[in-house]
Amino acid sequence: MDIKTKAGQARGASGKLASTSAEERNAALRSIAQALESEGASIDAANKADLEAARETGLAAPLLKRLKFDVAKRVDCIAGIASLISLPDPVGVVQKRTELSPGLELTREACPIGVVGIIFESRPDALVQISTLCLKSGNGCLLKGGSEARNTNRRLYEVISGAAASAGMPDGWMQLLETREDVGAMLALDEYIDLLIPRGSNAFVRHIMDNTHIAVMGHADGICHVYIDAAAEVGMALDVVEDSKCQYPAVCNAAEKVLVHEGIAHEFLPRMKARLEGRGVELRGCALTRAIIDCKVAEEADWDAEYLDAILAVKVVNGFDEAVEHINRHGSGHTDAIVTADTAAAEKFMDLVDSADVFWNCSTRFADGFRFGLGAEVGISTSKLHARGPVGLEGLMSYKWKLRGSGQTVAPFSDGRMEFTHVDKGV
Amino acid sequence: MDIKTKAGQARGASGKLASTSAEERNAALRSIAQALESEGASIDAANKADLEAARETGLAAPLLKRLKFDVAKRVDCIAGIASLISLPDPVGVVQKRTELSPGLELTREACPIGVVGIIFESRPDALVQISTLCLKSGNGCLLKGGSEARNTNRRLYEVISGAAASAGMPDGWMQLLETREDVGAMLALDEYIDLLIPRGSNAFVRHIMDNTHIAVMGHADGICHVYIDAAAEVGMALDVVEDSKCQYPAVCNAAEKVLVHEGIAHEFLPRMKARLEGRGVELRGCALTRAIIDCKVAEEADWDAEYLDAILAVKVVNGFDEAVEHINRHGSGHTDAIVTADTAAAEKFMDLVDSADVFWNCSTRFADGFRFGLGAEVGISTSKLHARGPVGLEGLMSYKWKLRGSGQTVAPFSDGRMEFTHVDKGV
Repeated sequence: MDIKTKAGQARGASGKLASTSAEERNAALRSIAQALESEGASIDAANKADLEAARETGLAAPLLKRLKFDVAKRVDCIAGIASLISLPDPVGVVQKRTELSPGLELTREACPIGVVGIIFESRPDALVQISTLCLKSGNGCLLKGGSEARNTNRRLYEVISGAAASAGMPDGWMQLLETREDVGAMLALDEYIDLLIPRGSNAFVRHIMDNTHIAVMGHADGICHVYIDAAAEVGMALDVVEDSKCQYPAVCNAAEKVLVHEGIAHEFLPRMKARLEGRGVELRGCALTRAIIDCKVAEEADWDAEYLDAILAVKVVNGFDEAVEHINRHGSGHTDAIVTADTAAAEKFMDLVDSADVFWNCSTRFADGFRFGLGAEVGISTSKLHARGPVGLEGLMSYKWKLRGSGQTVAPFSDGRMEFTHVDKGV
Repeated sequence: MDIKTKAGQARGASGKLASTSAEERNAALRSIAQALESEGASIDAANKADLEAARETGLAAPLLKRLKFDVAKRVDCIAGIASLISLPDPVGVVQKRTELSPGLELTREACPIGVVGIIFESRPDALVQISTLCLKSGNGCLLKGGSEARNTNRRLYEVISGAAASAGMPDGWMQLLETREDVGAMLALDEYIDLLIPRGSNAFVRHIMDNTHIAVMGHADGICHVYIDAAAEVGMALDVVEDSKCQYPAVCNAAEKVLVHEGIAHEFLPRMKARLEGRGVELRGCALTRAIIDCKVAEEADWDAEYLDAILAVKVVNGFDEAVEHINRHGSGHTDAIVTADTAAAEKFMDLVDSADVFWNCSTRFADGFRFGLGAEVGISTSKLHARGPVGLEGLMSYKWKLRGSGQTVAPFSDGRMEFTHVDKGV
């Protein structure tokens, strides 16, 4: 079946999915959880085939670990589905209710976006999480996983779509894409696809964003800053920088840059150097930094680099304004933090820094849907439209306006015989 | 000044604008209203020059009427600014508040999108409305009006930006573009511009959507349907169809198609023909329609056409499913209505029709920001992301996540020494 046919099927099914009840979708989620349990052996076999093939091509150990879909990961996925079932139904939530005129009531109600195309890394648990998130939110989906996981993904697709179908979900709501060509073709299918969520390397996400007219949710770079203000408490600043940089350097919300106010640089930098070098971090400093501590040179390109590694670029700034300007120029709009005891400076920083997440006196690593309490996470968006920052189920929802009347026409409102009441009826 | 410089200035100013207080922005709006009053003579003179030039080029009378910016329109604009001042401040509204852990509080707060590029028709009052909406919502803007209004627009720009500057608004938040080339260049400035709002013909809006990576808010076609269900009350159906088609045929929320259930077609169609032909509407029918009433033939292309005129295409459908499928295939996702006494059918229609506005027993002409009670209107969006349907000030807002801590790091939450509390603190 070609991608256009698949996309058309998902589009057709998405309409029906949008009108299923929360009970029906939750029953399908339970059926999927049971099938992942009962079909465990065939899923294991498929994953073994993928792992063997990957070992033969010499896939690196960390990637093999991500590719592995063993009993423990399967149990986690099943627990994830249970927690998804327990979340309130996002479909049909009334967001506004207004009487326009007696007997003419307007509501704004959450509805699924429609069809979502998601391209994700070689981690089979991602397929389970994403497809069940889409089902919970009533969205059709086109899924393209990493090619190393092709056998596992195909088996998971069969198990999940079969279980959903047996629980009465419309055929075709979930489609599996298997080739790189399919991804290219998907970018042109704006007639069928409402939203793309690409997960993966910066270059890949940027490629998707630059080559489609479909809305894209996600982030390319994660160039996060910590700004140490003159009024920072040094011990706290050291803790925040260390956690932001070292707690998990390979992820998008890890800090890549530290900006230090010149008024505190002499006190802070030597202690930061001691602390971070103890954690194996390579420092790259501007000229003012290197006048205070010995470290490598930060080149101009360092300010725009996402290392995803134990490297930190350090710049001494002459004040608050330079820090904010630097972040807005070189940052990626993801997550940026200030450490300061000065409340006014902190609030001004959070207003002026144009990023999805703006933090005060805490680690950039908190930028995460689970930590934010959003439950299941779709991804992190650096767009300023629709969803921004960590995105939960809400990011998979649109809304529509429903107006329920009893024969009302506009003419009498237009010629002054009637007037709108516009009474807020609450939600 | 070239467009890139202008866009850069707007971007720079937008950061400052975002941190102004509601009082400061309202004071600037008051200053603008006063300037429109005191500078009336020079605005009139500029508009006279535009009107004279337009008459010489033989501009049609309705367009001349739109181009005219006389005392009455100026007074309306000033009243519009007064009502904008009275609206609650959209900036900084707290949308969520969660305690992640004692002393670590997360809020999601509304903030301006940043810089908005708006291209609008030759109606000088649009420049006043749009620029003041942007100011109220804290957004920088690039404005390109119709070239016929160039003298009026330039004078209005000088008066408004001057008044805003004298009230302390950051220089450059508002920029005027004057050439068609500027519009083309603007489409590539995704580094500076966060959102485009094109208003105008279908072809123009589609051209913008197809030629930029900047998010676009708006609608191309408005192909609105009224579906007359078997269980419709015929008198009501006639009223709704007449108003939807005839109350103002030249606008996007006027009905272009009527679908009629075969079970009611024999009763409904002759009466509809009498009613609409009495209003000068040309009917174009499918074969089944023409077996019942005498009218022109509806060709296949009619189902996808937006007439914006006193023409209505009519199709007899064999039931609810065919009606919904036809609307989702041929509609534009703008506004579609059902007339029926069957509540279950109405609710199913509103769930299954994938449009911004889905109406039951009322005219499609209600699809409008003012009628919806949203106050000032930015436009109508058929996108399913961000804002959908009539868009008020809310559509010009993004949000950011602010996390206020006291030195918290992720490590203790990661290794199990601490647990998130995730207490909803209300808003």
